[in-house]
Amino acid sequence: MTPRQFIGIDWGTSSMRAYLFADDGRVLDSREAGWGVMNLPVAPGSDPGDRESRFARAFWELLGDWLGQPGTCRRVMACGMVGSNQGWREAGYIGVPVALMDIAGSLTEVDAGQGVTLAITPGLLQQGALPDAIRGEETQIAGVPALLAQKGTDMQGCWLLGLPGTHSKWAAVQAGRILRFDTFLTGELYSLLVQHSILGRTMGDTVLAPDSDESRQSFMLGVRNATTDIGRKGLLGTIFSSRTLSLTGRLTGPEQREYLSGLLVGYELQGLLASLQDEWRTARIALVGRPGLCLRYHEALQELGHSADVLSEDAGIHGLWSLIQHAAARTAPTGRH
Amino acid sequence: MTPRQFIGIDWGTSSMRAYLFADDGRVLDSREAGWGVMNLPVAPGSDPGDRESRFARAFWELLGDWLGQPGTCRRVMACGMVGSNQGWREAGYIGVPVALMDIAGSLTEVDAGQGVTLAITPGLLQQGALPDAIRGEETQIAGVPALLAQKGTDMQGCWLLGLPGTHSKWAAVQAGRILRFDTFLTGELYSLLVQHSILGRTMGDTVLAPDSDESRQSFMLGVRNATTDIGRKGLLGTIFSSRTLSLTGRLTGPEQREYLSGLLVGYELQGLLASLQDEWRTARIALVGRPGLCLRYHEALQELGHSADVLSEDAGIHGLWSLIQHAAARTAPTGRH
Repeated sequence: MTPRQFIGIDWGTSSMRAYLFADDGRVLDSREAGWGVMNLPVAPGSDPGDRESRFARAFWELLGDWLGQPGTCRRVMACGMVGSNQGWREAGYIGVPVALMDIAGSLTEVDAGQGVTLAITPGLLQQGALPDAIRGEETQIAGVPALLAQKGTDMQGCWLLGLPGTHSKWAAVQAGRILRFDTFLTGELYSLLVQHSILGRTMGDTVLAPDSDESRQSFMLGVRNATTDIGRKGLLGTIFSSRTLSLTGRLTGPEQREYLSGLLVGYELQGLLASLQDEWRTARIALVGRPGLCLRYHEALQELGHSADVLSEDAGIHGLWSLIQHAAARTAPTGRH
Repeated sequence: MTPRQFIGIDWGTSSMRAYLFADDGRVLDSREAGWGVMNLPVAPGSDPGDRESRFARAFWELLGDWLGQPGTCRRVMACGMVGSNQGWREAGYIGVPVALMDIAGSLTEVDAGQGVTLAITPGLLQQGALPDAIRGEETQIAGVPALLAQKGTDMQGCWLLGLPGTHSKWAAVQAGRILRFDTFLTGELYSLLVQHSILGRTMGDTVLAPDSDESRQSFMLGVRNATTDIGRKGLLGTIFSSRTLSLTGRLTGPEQREYLSGLLVGYELQGLLASLQDEWRTARIALVGRPGLCLRYHEALQELGHSADVLSEDAGIHGLWSLIQHAAARTAPTGRH
């Protein structure tokens, strides 16, 4: 019997990453291309404005041979900006609270040609006075239970999942459901300040080794200044200190960069913890993302009296596999995958 | 007898503004040129790297005829970035607390040629865990007592002086002394977010009339979101709402701009008020700066239960005159100006 294979795509703004899964979830192969939603290929002689055909071209270029193999499922799962209003098809949003497995029940299907269907995951939308939205990270969150299981940890009770990055996301998960989430623009603001603000001008070009004492100490000074009493002035009233601590000879140029990062991460975590309802103050915390960045968040959380599980950044792969399984179960009521 | 005249210069990063004062402080004439510290003129055939001669050229081009008039004091007062390490001469910093009139006792003198001396005001430096620095605004602050006196207000008791702008400055002034000050990067962060961040992308190019209902209401929504309970997530955790309130149809593109401004101003004022010591919570507040911006800060302060005197933006002129008077009194111990 031909082994069955499944394809999942993490299709974002700047790139697409595809995974070929075996029937048991093992990743048989993976591929990456720079064909993000904002950077699609154009076929020679074709109209660059025909986005539909550009998406199709990227899809078949990257996945054609996998789909040509016997046994490969003709239904491909995709998450990320491919489902935004700039994507192949707008996949909409579903509201929270939502069960992780129900994300697989709200897929938007695109006919990719040659009998292949692309099933795009929805984003998550949280209504309220301060609405919030996620697109792509919901799939990473869906992969966390499997990652925790690998470490022998059962995802019981209240969990806060942190996905640090350009837009840090924090999700409150309980009993397989995302109850709420929050977006912090920490990484984007850090980049803006370093690249375009007066604070960046005295930082120089040297970047400290992340594991150096200077790097860690400068970062932690920022965390403490944000989260102790003197931080009450708030972010707007303290970030100038990254320059004045240089003016007064207490930070070198490269140390200013780490200090500013610590200030921002400190304010993110303080804001997160200050906005939690009581029962969530003792929630377990897990971090998913680039290892170096997760380590910094972990150190900052420790300073605030919290511990965290640092998971690998493969949550998106586990999430895709998890959604593929749930979607297959839904479309095959006999239980056959 | 020839009337005496005095010259004061506000010499900043992008421009220089000069004032010719009569003996009684009236402004007889004023001039402006684009020759800021970062944009000095070069004489034909001379070395652009010779900054000394470029400063002198700007100085004499703008002020030569005033200085040629009989009775014009040969000692010219200047404040601003002309005293920074990028300026004509580094004028250093003096510490706080400092009496306003003592700023005139720490001038740095430059020989401008032809028997003319340029006296540059020092910046102010505040030591501490979060050091802070001012250069130029100390002169505006020095002009506030005169501005208040024009309104019939005596500057008794505790005053908080707000100078909103790219870098908002707040100074605590009591009995003619600056006790402390704080810098908030509100204006710079606003510009960065509008110009370079994801938040700017959905704002469009239209700018609402400042006195329109949409503008004011959007701004106040931002202020309230920052300063009420839901704002506890902090700036990093709430600014994404400028985009999501658009996504959910509650703000138009142009309204997002005003909302973001309100959020930032709200966090600035909340941080300021949260960091005040008890005796300063009932301080009187005065705002100095562009009328439209001061009006917004005034409205935001009212929302937080505070009132403020909005002063004209001429504080710098009054400050220059005040420092010229104090300096003249110091150099003329007989009391003759």
